[in-house]
Amino acid sequence: MNIICTVVSENYSVKALELCDTIELRLDVLPESVVGRFIEWEKDLIFTCRREGDGGGFRGEEERRLSIISRYVMYADFVDIEYDVDEDFFRSVKRSGVGIIESYHSLKNPGYTYLRDIIEGKKGDILKIAIPGKHKKDIKLILKLHSEYDNLIAFLIGEEYRFTRIISSLSGSPFIYCHAGTPTAPGQFSVEEIYRLRNILTQRVIQ
Amino acid sequence: MNIICTVVSENYSVKALELCDTIELRLDVLPESVVGRFIEWEKDLIFTCRREGDGGGFRGEEERRLSIISRYVMYADFVDIEYDVDEDFFRSVKRSGVGIIESYHSLKNPGYTYLRDIIEGKKGDILKIAIPGKHKKDIKLILKLHSEYDNLIAFLIGEEYRFTRIISSLSGSPFIYCHAGTPTAPGQFSVEEIYRLRNILTQRVIQ
Repeated sequence: MNIICTVVSENYSVKALELCDTIELRLDVLPESVVGRFIEWEKDLIFTCRREGDGGGFRGEEERRLSIISRYVMYADFVDIEYDVDEDFFRSVKRSGVGIIESYHSLKNPGYTYLRDIIEGKKGDILKIAIPGKHKKDIKLILKLHSEYDNLIAFLIGEEYRFTRIISSLSGSPFIYCHAGTPTAPGQFSVEEIYRLRNILTQRVIQ
Repeated sequence: MNIICTVVSENYSVKALELCDTIELRLDVLPESVVGRFIEWEKDLIFTCRREGDGGGFRGEEERRLSIISRYVMYADFVDIEYDVDEDFFRSVKRSGVGIIESYHSLKNPGYTYLRDIIEGKKGDILKIAIPGKHKKDIKLILKLHSEYDNLIAFLIGEEYRFTRIISSLSGSPFIYCHAGTPTAPGQFSVEEIYRLRNILTQRVIQ
């Protein structure tokens, strides 16, 4: 259970961040000075710049957004790129040797076939799918995707469905997204909660 | 996450049992006097009498085993009956209005098709499948079964795969089996561990 922490504001807890394995820096909302603090820290870094339409804070030309991301590729262990971004951009990031999390964020569940096609045609190393949880069958969909694919992070957004983040993580997804003070999506766990949970799950069993 | 605690010896912790929702009493190993203590307790009760071949302690005629179970039906909320027991026995327990957990325990993973056929032809209310975890693909099997069926408890036996018990529970299985002092299967969590884990998962999120 590799804990990623997403930083979206200056109000983060350093203590919480120290418990993380990886930190995601949201270039759409963080001032450059805050991003700078994290570069050359010992933690692995993910950079992303989320569009307003995907629930982020970036408003502007796509070209400018991609150029912001490009500027940070040299500091990155992973870059998060949306599934609908041009293939050329994926290729250029890949050439730099940086890992790619290809992401699909939506306020609507597009159904199994649509998601399967994204996964089958994936351009990144890891696929991240975050869709809203509304019905019990949405949980079944998450289970089905994880039963069929690896290198997948698939979960439901929403407090009531937050446990699907744990299902995803236990099903072998490479990361679990947490917060260090300010949740970035409904249902997100805090780093401390996941840290405690991980301790319970990995405790050595003495029989 | 309805916590079941399995009692197999007199060395149980009353404090742990108080945290449970349901208690499973193993008639194959518990003395009658211990079983008697639990009857008329406020907890829901499951009765089972496990055969030696299924990892239990009962050696003897099948007819005698079923008659032991029958004796406790009147005190039961659920009775655990093995999938290969005669259909007539299932029918007679069902007539008494008691819930049935139909169980499949095996030291060998028989594969998807075999398990699917058991589920499709199920004679009980809930199906419980416990098979050994050996490969990563065994986890995929558990995910697949849970993505397709309800009223299912399916997990992998073994310390390394104990997290599949959590996957099963989060996937909607009605119970999670724990111990109150003495694990009854490799990888089983203690009641206290699951209680702490459940608290983390169900905490109200304040945003």
